[in-house]
Amino acid sequence: MKTKLYQQVADDLRGLIQQGAYCPGDKLPSIRLLATQKKVSIATIQRALEELEMVGLIEAKPKSGFYVRMPAGDNIQYETPLLPMLPKSVEIHERASHIFHQCEGKDILNLGTSYPAAAYSPSKLLQKIATQVIKQNMKAVVEVHFSTGNQLLRENLAKRLGEAGCRINAEEVIITNGCLEALSVCLRAVAKPGDTIALESPGFVGLFQLIESMGYRAIEIPCHPVDGMSIEALQLALEQWDIKAVAIVPTFSNPLGSNMPENHRQKLVELLADKEIPLIEDDLFGDLAFDGSRIKPCKAFDKKGLVLYCSSASKTIASGLRVGWIAPGAFFKEVSYFKTFTNISAPNFAQMVIAEFLDSGRYDRYLRQLTTTLAQRMYLFQRLIENYFPDGTQVSHPQGGCVLWVMLPQGLDGYHFFKQAIKNKIAVIPGELCSASDKFNHCIRLNCACEPEIKVESCIQQLGLIAKKMLNEKINC
Amino acid sequence: MKTKLYQQVADDLRGLIQQGAYCPGDKLPSIRLLATQKKVSIATIQRALEELEMVGLIEAKPKSGFYVRMPAGDNIQYETPLLPMLPKSVEIHERASHIFHQCEGKDILNLGTSYPAAAYSPSKLLQKIATQVIKQNMKAVVEVHFSTGNQLLRENLAKRLGEAGCRINAEEVIITNGCLEALSVCLRAVAKPGDTIALESPGFVGLFQLIESMGYRAIEIPCHPVDGMSIEALQLALEQWDIKAVAIVPTFSNPLGSNMPENHRQKLVELLADKEIPLIEDDLFGDLAFDGSRIKPCKAFDKKGLVLYCSSASKTIASGLRVGWIAPGAFFKEVSYFKTFTNISAPNFAQMVIAEFLDSGRYDRYLRQLTTTLAQRMYLFQRLIENYFPDGTQVSHPQGGCVLWVMLPQGLDGYHFFKQAIKNKIAVIPGELCSASDKFNHCIRLNCACEPEIKVESCIQQLGLIAKKMLNEKINC
Repeated sequence: MKTKLYQQVADDLRGLIQQGAYCPGDKLPSIRLLATQKKVSIATIQRALEELEMVGLIEAKPKSGFYVRMPAGDNIQYETPLLPMLPKSVEIHERASHIFHQCEGKDILNLGTSYPAAAYSPSKLLQKIATQVIKQNMKAVVEVHFSTGNQLLRENLAKRLGEAGCRINAEEVIITNGCLEALSVCLRAVAKPGDTIALESPGFVGLFQLIESMGYRAIEIPCHPVDGMSIEALQLALEQWDIKAVAIVPTFSNPLGSNMPENHRQKLVELLADKEIPLIEDDLFGDLAFDGSRIKPCKAFDKKGLVLYCSSASKTIASGLRVGWIAPGAFFKEVSYFKTFTNISAPNFAQMVIAEFLDSGRYDRYLRQLTTTLAQRMYLFQRLIENYFPDGTQVSHPQGGCVLWVMLPQGLDGYHFFKQAIKNKIAVIPGELCSASDKFNHCIRLNCACEPEIKVESCIQQLGLIAKKMLNEKINC
Repeated sequence: MKTKLYQQVADDLRGLIQQGAYCPGDKLPSIRLLATQKKVSIATIQRALEELEMVGLIEAKPKSGFYVRMPAGDNIQYETPLLPMLPKSVEIHERASHIFHQCEGKDILNLGTSYPAAAYSPSKLLQKIATQVIKQNMKAVVEVHFSTGNQLLRENLAKRLGEAGCRINAEEVIITNGCLEALSVCLRAVAKPGDTIALESPGFVGLFQLIESMGYRAIEIPCHPVDGMSIEALQLALEQWDIKAVAIVPTFSNPLGSNMPENHRQKLVELLADKEIPLIEDDLFGDLAFDGSRIKPCKAFDKKGLVLYCSSASKTIASGLRVGWIAPGAFFKEVSYFKTFTNISAPNFAQMVIAEFLDSGRYDRYLRQLTTTLAQRMYLFQRLIENYFPDGTQVSHPQGGCVLWVMLPQGLDGYHFFKQAIKNKIAVIPGELCSASDKFNHCIRLNCACEPEIKVESCIQQLGLIAKKMLNEKINC
């Protein structure tokens, strides 16, 4: 597909902002001047600026012009503690299960669970592909294969990973039933019950629950809203404890949305390689950068095969197809073994559908639409939270993914907030689920890719009122 | 669908044989007499007798008439030892993996792995249903659900289980990605690494591998070709060892094909209930009785909720859809927990296809065709083995399923046989994989539901020659 003119202009301006030619707070040249500079019409400039405004990169100030907004993460201001926590057993499942159950309740406006709603999937195209698969390949659909995955799918994944800087052959990829299974199989391949796994704090609730279900112990490494896991804190932890593996979401981490810089990724991989410790990399948001860029996964820096790369199509194409994958490096044999004895192999149908979709060459175009939509929605959420939540509320500014992290003011309790929200038929995730400690009890997590039918403004307004009421009660106490 | 007249006659005769009105070796009345008795044409009687002959229930003796064949299991004659083996770690995976890999090799005529080939699936009907599901329910296909399974599927399964004598609500059923995942999740729910599980000997190779992959220990309970697991031997084992759970395939066990009688099932359930020990029942061949009967699962005798019933559509409808299920009784919470942290939930697409197929009411008709085909194929295999294998070979006579167990004469080695067969591009499973001991090294397992394109007579003839050659070499040594 040819890129439209206004998109080219928007990309140019985005590049200038990212390179620092325009800094946060700077005013952009006038529309007229930009049109002259770029040799395009005023309408084209207006459309390009709208595009950048929608994804939250610039903002219009009435009667003044367009300004560069504050960069990612600047809104959440906290010192990342240097000391990791002690290794401990995880015990959050009972509470998590209770909370998720309510998120999925009838008539609940669910801003909690972090799967994009079906409306964001390329359903029409998938429907066409699925119909073709069934028409032409029914034998493959009904027959089980004792293999590590569909060949066309693995070739396409290897190709895309290659474009992201990882040298991987199709034969090195193992297909799973979604990313949680990928993580589970990798954890079984590298550690045993009782072993300690280092992970981000705050981190992905599913990973905490997984570690709990497997009888492992967790050591939480502080995570910064912009840079991700603190390498210094990890280094300290490695010196003190017998850590069997590290598990991270380096790109648009859940819940913080932090994006570990490339030099940190390289340092992390080298640090672990030095100690021969495997790194489980969960890259499920890797394709969801708002600016369309593809940051190198940690896997790209892996020289020893110690990085077990996991991802899935659940946050990008369709969560219901349950297609995930692993590039397990040196652990291919172990991972393949545990995958086989989880459930033999992933169903062929879903693998063929995702394979044909990737192979059609239409994934990138779709991704551009999706990330633009996600960026717009995230910006909308941020703007509404700024408007309706009480002063002192801080909100994350991720540059990709769909998850937003909100720190309530004055240490208001996130679980109490959750309960009040549920009374109003709105679900959020209280921060306490994102750690086995009580360090994030004053936070909540929101999914910006919730059902499009949900009236976001009204929801955030109600949530803001709840926060204000809680704050008043606290002050009056 | 109306049952055809000849089928009614065949069913009547089958009933008389099963009730003992005609015993093994008895001559049936002449065709003319039967036609008069039943008030039907001679052609109808001939067609009915052909039907019974094809499934191996009767045989024609030239110039004499039709005779009732020997009943199931009579061909394999061995004393079931009363003493169970010692609990031990399982270490068969390396060997099993090497063997299965060769079974799936290029140009190999695979009589080894025990999945029915795609040709036995109701592909046309599934294709129609799948196309409809995609046309009408794409939202459900692309969207993940945090549930224990598709409601229509669970209702249909509960209904069928009800017809088999089990009182189960749809809400008590958990859907999995195939039966191996069901077994894996149940094992995690009832035991911990290091614990001892009692299972059949010889038994299902996948179950041995599963136990190995989970770090459990196995105690093998002798299994009889007709009656299945010896209750007396299990009783002795329970007195001596701390057994955390029992796992069995009571209906058409793999590899023996034995069918535990109802009173044994009841006794087994009561014995375990008395000691509060959970029973994992793998009923995946439960719908595949050649005579269309549905023997009660152990679950039907479960009063305390200690039976975790597992099954799947992989041996009946389509192995590639990877749909299995569990009715976990009192372990619902634990099983649901471990299922969630295996991979959240089973893909919706496959669940909807199986649900619509069962709900269409066409499953029973299809099942009748399938079991007739399987019976014919099994009879063909048995007859060819009798013809081509050396004297002293014994073969199982299961009344359902698709797996045949062959005891080679004079203790010939099954693995050596396997290697010779592979040289001839034919794959079988050596008996050693069906136990963690070396008690079945003189056996092989065959899958009668292999690809229909495989020329069975030529294969068995070649296998027979291999056995004869091995026997000659042994005698001449």
